[in-house]
Amino acid sequence: MKNIEERLSGLRSCLKKDSIGAFIIPSSDPHFGEYIQKHFACREWLSGFTGSAGTLVVTEHRAALWTDSRYFVQARQELQGSGIELMKMRFAGTPTIAEWIKREVGNGSLVGIDPMLFSKGEFESLSAELYPLKLSLKDDLFNEIWGERPPVIFSPATIQDISLGGCDSKHKLNLVCQKLNIENDLLYILSSCDDIAWLCNIRGADIPFNPLVLSYAAFTKDKIYLFASREAFSKDQASNLKNSGIELCNYNEFQEFIKEFNQDYVRVAPIDKISVKIFNNSVSGGATFIADPIRGGVTGSLKAVKNSAEIEGFKKAMLYDAVAWVKFWIYLEEELQRGSQNLTEEILANKIGEIRGEYSEYKGESFSPIVAFGENGALPHYSPFGNGPVKVVGDGFLLVDTGAHYPFGTTDTTRTFAIGNLTQEQRKDYTLVLKGMINLSMARFIKGTRGASLDFLARGAVCSAAKIYTHGTGHGIGHNLCVHEGPQSIRMEENPVALEPGMVISNEPAIYEEGSYGIRIENTILCKKWVENKYGEFYEFETLTIVPIDLTPVDKQLLGPEATQWLNNYHSNIYEKLSVILNQKERDWLAVKTLNID
Amino acid sequence: MKNIEERLSGLRSCLKKDSIGAFIIPSSDPHFGEYIQKHFACREWLSGFTGSAGTLVVTEHRAALWTDSRYFVQARQELQGSGIELMKMRFAGTPTIAEWIKREVGNGSLVGIDPMLFSKGEFESLSAELYPLKLSLKDDLFNEIWGERPPVIFSPATIQDISLGGCDSKHKLNLVCQKLNIENDLLYILSSCDDIAWLCNIRGADIPFNPLVLSYAAFTKDKIYLFASREAFSKDQASNLKNSGIELCNYNEFQEFIKEFNQDYVRVAPIDKISVKIFNNSVSGGATFIADPIRGGVTGSLKAVKNSAEIEGFKKAMLYDAVAWVKFWIYLEEELQRGSQNLTEEILANKIGEIRGEYSEYKGESFSPIVAFGENGALPHYSPFGNGPVKVVGDGFLLVDTGAHYPFGTTDTTRTFAIGNLTQEQRKDYTLVLKGMINLSMARFIKGTRGASLDFLARGAVCSAAKIYTHGTGHGIGHNLCVHEGPQSIRMEENPVALEPGMVISNEPAIYEEGSYGIRIENTILCKKWVENKYGEFYEFETLTIVPIDLTPVDKQLLGPEATQWLNNYHSNIYEKLSVILNQKERDWLAVKTLNID
Repeated sequence: MKNIEERLSGLRSCLKKDSIGAFIIPSSDPHFGEYIQKHFACREWLSGFTGSAGTLVVTEHRAALWTDSRYFVQARQELQGSGIELMKMRFAGTPTIAEWIKREVGNGSLVGIDPMLFSKGEFESLSAELYPLKLSLKDDLFNEIWGERPPVIFSPATIQDISLGGCDSKHKLNLVCQKLNIENDLLYILSSCDDIAWLCNIRGADIPFNPLVLSYAAFTKDKIYLFASREAFSKDQASNLKNSGIELCNYNEFQEFIKEFNQDYVRVAPIDKISVKIFNNSVSGGATFIADPIRGGVTGSLKAVKNSAEIEGFKKAMLYDAVAWVKFWIYLEEELQRGSQNLTEEILANKIGEIRGEYSEYKGESFSPIVAFGENGALPHYSPFGNGPVKVVGDGFLLVDTGAHYPFGTTDTTRTFAIGNLTQEQRKDYTLVLKGMINLSMARFIKGTRGASLDFLARGAVCSAAKIYTHGTGHGIGHNLCVHEGPQSIRMEENPVALEPGMVISNEPAIYEEGSYGIRIENTILCKKWVENKYGEFYEFETLTIVPIDLTPVDKQLLGPEATQWLNNYHSNIYEKLSVILNQKERDWLAVKTLNID
Repeated sequence: MKNIEERLSGLRSCLKKDSIGAFIIPSSDPHFGEYIQKHFACREWLSGFTGSAGTLVVTEHRAALWTDSRYFVQARQELQGSGIELMKMRFAGTPTIAEWIKREVGNGSLVGIDPMLFSKGEFESLSAELYPLKLSLKDDLFNEIWGERPPVIFSPATIQDISLGGCDSKHKLNLVCQKLNIENDLLYILSSCDDIAWLCNIRGADIPFNPLVLSYAAFTKDKIYLFASREAFSKDQASNLKNSGIELCNYNEFQEFIKEFNQDYVRVAPIDKISVKIFNNSVSGGATFIADPIRGGVTGSLKAVKNSAEIEGFKKAMLYDAVAWVKFWIYLEEELQRGSQNLTEEILANKIGEIRGEYSEYKGESFSPIVAFGENGALPHYSPFGNGPVKVVGDGFLLVDTGAHYPFGTTDTTRTFAIGNLTQEQRKDYTLVLKGMINLSMARFIKGTRGASLDFLARGAVCSAAKIYTHGTGHGIGHNLCVHEGPQSIRMEENPVALEPGMVISNEPAIYEEGSYGIRIENTILCKKWVENKYGEFYEFETLTIVPIDLTPVDKQLLGPEATQWLNNYHSNIYEKLSVILNQKERDWLAVKTLNID
């Protein structure tokens, strides 16, 4: 861990020079997405902790890393010998970052942050928590101390065909401004690459698993300024953008642009998606700022509601992916039947990618696949890579969670397969997870209903066995964009966003028996209009995923007649849709898998 | 409506004298409960509108009353000819009170309120909304203009036996202070009569339907000051209070007391349950104020969690009430069988009171009973009184919602009876309401779950028929206190209060077919611990109500096997509990009503 010690002492020299008592290094980049480029992985470089979520705080003599329960084991291993302490977030007795800093540094000390890595919203709440300590803004200290820092990479971008997105940028800009409903001249500032990709109908490959262009944007009521790599777009593409009312500018011209832009234009942004630095620059000339009042920001809220072209695209993606799953499941069964002793999680994780790779339209995985056998399934964010070969041999559940990007849509599906013999408890748990998933799928609800109202339809089935899963039941899914997309969700926690027709959401209850097994069954569901009458407008879900569900562990009695009927219909529908595009062998196999249970 | 005009002009003269442009008259009294004494019914006296919820605003030339959808019809009738306009709350296009006032009066105008009738919390938000208009505090203007104003009435109070409440005041005071966890010396100010009744173990008859003593209280960490009518307590009772650490003071000495009390004692109160005037007086000498951080206030949150003595009391009350319901239902059936043409809603509403009146322990109704036949059932807050005789003859649903106070507990039960023939839709709706009620009854959930997470278990069954009820599914119920009690609830709307073992809540889904029929089935449920394991602590509900449910409209197929099994167990349990205390005829009748359906 000599590396880490040297790096920490490099940072400490900088802090001393600037009289900073504590420095906070978050996981984020200036675009506040889920994934970041290596260039921005300062926290990882400095601490050695590779998890996606964690915040490091460094003082003169101590260093501590806050992370959540998903990463406790990994962080303990990776931090060993570094001198960095692990702080278990949301555990009784764990101080918050602000509490810890206040204890560690003297009154009057400065607390340093990089203003590009904290949103205006985070900055405000952190300032309040740290009071009376003051925050000090330090532009990228890591440029000084990170010797062989990876450069920022800009890959070639693509322009999304109108037939896929269903709506051109000019129209989207109108929708956004209508919904914003601000009378003044405005300059709306966008840092979130997925909102920009949606608005400008562009896609890229700059962020792992997210088909995004590393970019900023700003728009007035009639023009969009896109700040990306000029080299990422061909001449044709640039003129295409121009025709769509989009002026292409260089990524590094953005700060200057927002400083210089006409000060009479009110600056608008969602305060959780604009960095302190960009905020400060945007109002440095005296311009007024209005926080976007819409949860998730106006572009995010419009992006979440898919139009008919996007929905058709999702359905096509589901068809492609379902065929891949069928091929994958057949491969798995054949390997098991021939008694392979060398089948590993990693082989299986690569297999589904290989199968999808045969489609010319396949654009890559929408997240790192989870293939977890036996007790590994009990870790919700397990990775089959880098653990040494884990053989899929013997009895247990095999949990497979994988998704793909296609130009026409994104998928995210989990299936749990019964391998060998199961216990009574395993069958019961599997059935309850399935029942929960189906209960939510069947929901019909009035306009205005929030995801938090529906969460217990799925969760309740699991609770009935005195078990729980601690994650949400559902997250929004982007259209050839991020597989985790806001602002809607289906969770226990309150989220004021009401579900709307056109929203695409995952439905993934689970049970994790630590040290033993994990079960998760995940479909993608579409919220759509059901009926309208004197009581109001009612919505329902249409299940988009058409991957068969392993029936061998199902306890029909426990599943109950309503859920059984749903399941039979589901499988009949799958057979109908897939049989016409499968080969004879696959079709025969599918006919058995989709047989009705009575 | 000459009266009303004269009264309004009386008020307007006062306003003119004080240069007040608009005056706001709410429905509340200084104790912010659901019901008020006639003395405090200024809004009713001034407007003629008798509904329980409504706010009147009077300007020099106009007057308008804001009320909610429950009261639109009644308000239209009662306001006719008064010149007072009806403002339909939460309807598109209806201005808020602040918006309307801002339109009506000039900039710089004063807006008058009585500081005893607005909580500190309401005052703050109203001030913000009215800005730049200023609020002007006017002590009870109605004393001047209301000629024959009813006096404040203080009835004799009782002291609750320790066997009923299960906990003496000293112990409750300790619990309250522990939960508050404020280090300073403090003077906690209580205006809510039910919190005071709970803390001091006193009951009274000063408020309609609420067995409360009109009172204020204030307590330090070791002493309670109770401000009520001295005459309401006998000498023995007063010394009893003294032994419990409670000093009895006169109701009208309260304001002086909080002004004069040692200024080193921090004042604490829930800002939604303390009037502006009391707040101002309490800090007028320079004392610091801390808002009670606990939702519903610390006393309210502890009162909501019933102890074992209170729970036993509830069960006893349910037994008494169930026998009354059996006698009532038999009476109803006999009247219908003998072909009575004179049976009315009002006769039935009085009947159940008469039956309960035979118990020496019966203390009165916990709310005005609802007995609604046919289309009247579609009005959730219908009253069978004062509508002329409505005969219960022919086909339809008879909805009966009634509750009682006993020294040992409070009840609130709704049953819907099938009279004559029903349509297919009526049977379906009845079954779905019942299914929703049962779904919620069967819920099992993890510690920390909020009512908002469980609401859809009941509501979803109704939504499945593309229908809704716009009220909550469940409200807390007091122990020989208010039948509507916070802070917990089971509603669509977010309420951050988690359900806890000991909380008693109603479970009352419904369907209202306007102009046709209403169905509501309401039980009282108790949250209790189910199991604890490595996943955490799990809770479930125990249904306390033991009144049979009319089975004739039930569609067994639609109800489903799980709910059917619950229903059969429910009825078997009722028969077991009640058969031993009923006479032979009643027992035989009950045996039929509680037969299992298969």
